[in-house]
Amino acid sequence: MSETLETRLFNELDQLVLIDPHTHINPLSPASTTLADILGYHYYTELAHSAGMPREVIEDPKLGPREKVGRLVEGLGHLDNTVQLSWLLEAAGTLFDVTMDRVDASNWEQLYDAAQAKFDQPDWEQQVLERSKLEAVFLTNDFDDPLQGFDTQRYVPCLRTDELVFHFIKPSVRQRLAECSQIQVQTLDDLARALRQRFEHFVAHGVRACAISLPPHFSPQDISDSDAGQALERILRASEDASADDAQTLGYWVFWQLARLCSQFQLPFDLMIGVNRAVYPGGVFQGQDLYDSRVSLIQYRELFNAFPGVTFPISVLASVTNQELVSYAWIFPNVVCNGHWWYSNTPGFITRDLQARLEAVPRNKVVGYYSDMYKLEFAQPKFAMYKRCLATVLADSFVRARGWSETRAVELGRQVLRGNVESIFYADH
Amino acid sequence: MSETLETRLFNELDQLVLIDPHTHINPLSPASTTLADILGYHYYTELAHSAGMPREVIEDPKLGPREKVGRLVEGLGHLDNTVQLSWLLEAAGTLFDVTMDRVDASNWEQLYDAAQAKFDQPDWEQQVLERSKLEAVFLTNDFDDPLQGFDTQRYVPCLRTDELVFHFIKPSVRQRLAECSQIQVQTLDDLARALRQRFEHFVAHGVRACAISLPPHFSPQDISDSDAGQALERILRASEDASADDAQTLGYWVFWQLARLCSQFQLPFDLMIGVNRAVYPGGVFQGQDLYDSRVSLIQYRELFNAFPGVTFPISVLASVTNQELVSYAWIFPNVVCNGHWWYSNTPGFITRDLQARLEAVPRNKVVGYYSDMYKLEFAQPKFAMYKRCLATVLADSFVRARGWSETRAVELGRQVLRGNVESIFYADH
Amino acid sequence: MSETLETRLFNELDQLVLIDPHTHINPLSPASTTLADILGYHYYTELAHSAGMPREVIEDPKLGPREKVGRLVEGLGHLDNTVQLSWLLEAAGTLFDVTMDRVDASNWEQLYDAAQAKFDQPDWEQQVLERSKLEAVFLTNDFDDPLQGFDTQRYVPCLRTDELVFHFIKPSVRQRLAECSQIQVQTLDDLARALRQRFEHFVAHGVRACAISLPPHFSPQDISDSDAGQALERILRASEDASADDAQTLGYWVFWQLARLCSQFQLPFDLMIGVNRAVYPGGVFQGQDLYDSRVSLIQYRELFNAFPGVTFPISVLASVTNQELVSYAWIFPNVVCNGHWWYSNTPGFITRDLQARLEAVPRNKVVGYYSDMYKLEFAQPKFAMYKRCLATVLADSFVRARGWSETRAVELGRQVLRGNVESIFYADH
Repeated sequence: MSETLETRLFNELDQLVLIDPHTHINPLSPASTTLADILGYHYYTELAHSAGMPREVIEDPKLGPREKVGRLVEGLGHLDNTVQLSWLLEAAGTLFDVTMDRVDASNWEQLYDAAQAKFDQPDWEQQVLERSKLEAVFLTNDFDDPLQGFDTQRYVPCLRTDELVFHFIKPSVRQRLAECSQIQVQTLDDLARALRQRFEHFVAHGVRACAISLPPHFSPQDISDSDAGQALERILRASEDASADDAQTLGYWVFWQLARLCSQFQLPFDLMIGVNRAVYPGGVFQGQDLYDSRVSLIQYRELFNAFPGVTFPISVLASVTNQELVSYAWIFPNVVCNGHWWYSNTPGFITRDLQARLEAVPRNKVVGYYSDMYKLEFAQPKFAMYKRCLATVLADSFVRARGWSETRAVELGRQVLRGNVESIFYADH
Repeated sequence: MSETLETRLFNELDQLVLIDPHTHINPLSPASTTLADILGYHYYTELAHSAGMPREVIEDPKLGPREKVGRLVEGLGHLDNTVQLSWLLEAAGTLFDVTMDRVDASNWEQLYDAAQAKFDQPDWEQQVLERSKLEAVFLTNDFDDPLQGFDTQRYVPCLRTDELVFHFIKPSVRQRLAECSQIQVQTLDDLARALRQRFEHFVAHGVRACAISLPPHFSPQDISDSDAGQALERILRASEDASADDAQTLGYWVFWQLARLCSQFQLPFDLMIGVNRAVYPGGVFQGQDLYDSRVSLIQYRELFNAFPGVTFPISVLASVTNQELVSYAWIFPNVVCNGHWWYSNTPGFITRDLQARLEAVPRNKVVGYYSDMYKLEFAQPKFAMYKRCLATVLADSFVRARGWSETRAVELGRQVLRGNVESIFYADH
Repeated sequence: MSETLETRLFNELDQLVLIDPHTHINPLSPASTTLADILGYHYYTELAHSAGMPREVIEDPKLGPREKVGRLVEGLGHLDNTVQLSWLLEAAGTLFDVTMDRVDASNWEQLYDAAQAKFDQPDWEQQVLERSKLEAVFLTNDFDDPLQGFDTQRYVPCLRTDELVFHFIKPSVRQRLAECSQIQVQTLDDLARALRQRFEHFVAHGVRACAISLPPHFSPQDISDSDAGQALERILRASEDASADDAQTLGYWVFWQLARLCSQFQLPFDLMIGVNRAVYPGGVFQGQDLYDSRVSLIQYRELFNAFPGVTFPISVLASVTNQELVSYAWIFPNVVCNGHWWYSNTPGFITRDLQARLEAVPRNKVVGYYSDMYKLEFAQPKFAMYKRCLATVLADSFVRARGWSETRAVELGRQVLRGNVESIFYADH
């Protein structure tokens, strides 16, 4: 069979060495140590649970890794249509050198052992990075992360700020802020200084982005210091009994302060828009969040206007918001399309959303993809899925529909996969 | 021309004997008696009306069937692009043995007579079922349906509950409930007993699902007995003058009670989400309903959490809600994707929505299709349309994109078309 | 390479002579006079700005046309993936006889000069119309346009009414209304008479449609004369300090009045639904508007019911509203699908939205496309883009999926491109 246009484009794109601009990698333990690290990924536990496996079976704390995998495998038959499971099979082939069509009771131990043989090699982390053509990996760091003990060129710090905006009413969060910043927040000015101190700490360690995930109802406003100060006062008094209004007022103020600091420290501010947390409290670990797709970027109108100097790489949870993202990136210089997030990270949605972006957003404003992974082994199959979608869009909408040369199409693909990560997150270089 | 992959997959899927899990068939008169039964389907009358034919022309009560068809045919030229009209032409070929590209003034009588010759055969019902490879057909039964005079294995009772939730303020509904249950509702406890009595009646007659269609604003909550009791009291006093608040309060209570009964009697609860009734009161019979696509499954969060033991096969009216359905079915064990409903029942929407489902929802949680038909003759063309979409998705997203064998793809298709109907609606077998 | 089905269908459709049913052409200066007229189109200035070019660079009022184009060209490299830029390159080939893959520093002057040589020909307007196969072009006329000095058969008046509905609180608008209508509005009756006078003026000059663009929150109601009269009284007193409530009340009343006048004068009322103005006030001229996609046609339910005799050709800004448009056009006789507007005017959205329309809306209720252009040179490339999408949908969904002949598919395409423009906007002919 002759090589198709899509395959040729994919093969070219697949040569590229990547920077993964958003992950949840633990830089002190970036690679898996057993197959349970892979199958314990919430994509598999939540799908196995959704397909019928009780949570207790999956999350029994007494389970050893081999037993845990053995139990999960019993539920994988119901998932074998999902693209999520295809990531595992692709990684089996490309990283563990095991080719299989399905994982089931008959062959999972073969996979387990083959993977273990890899994990046990002392340079496995290095091998995965090489096989995956990964040069650097952005992290998701808590605000009080010491950022020590790892190479911040390879594992690039990103300041995750959900807790500061949404959970400041929790004493534990305030305590952690006091400890890491050495500032006990009593006043709004203390809070401003503590936040700034955190930015200074992160900048000193090579941070490349500030990031936050946001619920659908979030509509940030520029809260006055006086209103925020009063809310803070009441929160410090009431703590977790603080009113939802006060928590929101202070949260908006903190959010605005973060944007201001991004402006001052010239950091992109990744907005991940649309998630409702703990919609299904009975779900497995990390498998409880969902969303309300009735969200609009109009909610961020004031923000985008107030901070023209801050780049906002934006991820939207639901594909229905993608057209707004395209339109806002087409109009606002500081709005950038960023990846295909979570529930929109399947080939159908990626392909349609990407086509819309590449047809109407300036090419320097589309950050193609990030893996969102917890363990390094997922970069290869997830990026491969994306590159197949990208090759399809380049083939259909550029080579076929507009008569572009393959070289030119690949050049656009490279910019989206790698070039824009550099120009947007390493703008100072 | 060589047979395409899509055609081969379709042909395999087309061998399958089906159970149609949602229709409006009258089991005492399941097949058409004249072509007016077919062309009188609201899909044709509403489209002909929308294309310019006055309602009076279509709905003149004095019209005989032949004259009615003759009139409607005059409007069909404007509809010949619609997939809805293609169902008629497909049925003409597969059921009435008449091949035609178009129905117009020149040939409709030929079609009418050919169809009539079929309808007049005493075993026509049996013939249609066989030609359509239909083994069983789910019904939509009013809560006071005696469920007698037909084979409930073939025509499977489903308890439709819209009237109980939305129209309890109508004296006629209360009267019917009193008559069929032998319980005159005076108190909330009476109402609970009457509802339970109805479940017992339906279960005794082999009911396979409870079902309801819901407007976009519906956000069910667990109403306290005390609040519901007070609302009931005022409703019994005010009847149709009851306040909208009271009607809603009691409606939510009834809805919750139905979910509780589904749990106790182990019945799936079909939710058909998103329709606004009588948006266009000047429209033809059954051609007056539309919708507001701004609806979210987050409105059902409390319900899904409260009834983990009830399976909710969910249909969404607008394709824009499909991604939420995919995501909720991916996370909640009790949420199942169900068919492609009404305004989303056209090939473009089916194909995209189905791809999203098959890429991310466990394969045991997708009920492929139901015909929603009023007369048996529509199952064949509607299911055929769906099977073509299914063959396309299997070909593109599984055989081509993931290298699946055709056998494996067909196996997935079979599960979606038939297997899941059995496992979900006949779980006790 | 053999000619594809899509190409054959496109070539057939491309023979057609068109009427463009919505543009912003100035009939006194319909064609471009320099390439700055083309590159000054907001699609290019806003994209160049979004890609990084400061507004001052683009909008410096001292710039001559050649210098302006030279500056903009510096930003075009970032846009070369966009379909918007492909319009320019297509027009270069079809209208200016210059073939180029990209416009950059090396070749823009060649393009500039080649285009100038065309613009300088005295019959250029006629040439563009002929090369673009344009027979007539609908305009967007202010309510006080004298409609003189041009051939209204070729440049067809359309009464644009945004200012009357949304800006009546501005003294300048009231002043202009007084001057053109010779009626100084003091009472609601004056206002009714002034509006009627405007309709009479436009009808006398061959108007073919009334048109308005509407924000997402617009939910028109039939306001009583008494409420409207009181709002008017307060507005006349307070002028620009009028309350938002009064402005909205009177706006709804005026809107209803316009619909009534459309009914009396038998004019279609083009509704362009969904735009928020000046979301990005820092943007370039005409590059500041965006939207909130959370809009529903249910907001127009009362309107569609109240004016069964008025045809409403409806454009929706966001593709997410397309399914509602399809469904409302399928049910309401007076709702018609109209073109692919602005942020939905890219091939991905057009193709999907068009497939949905052609599969479910009666064929006499789809107005395929309008160019929305400001200068004649854009009709050719924009319509060509649309015709490629149309050819794709006809090939896939009709010839391949339903076995239609190419002749029959082209016939449907012609009706959508031209026939329905005649039957809907020239119904009285």
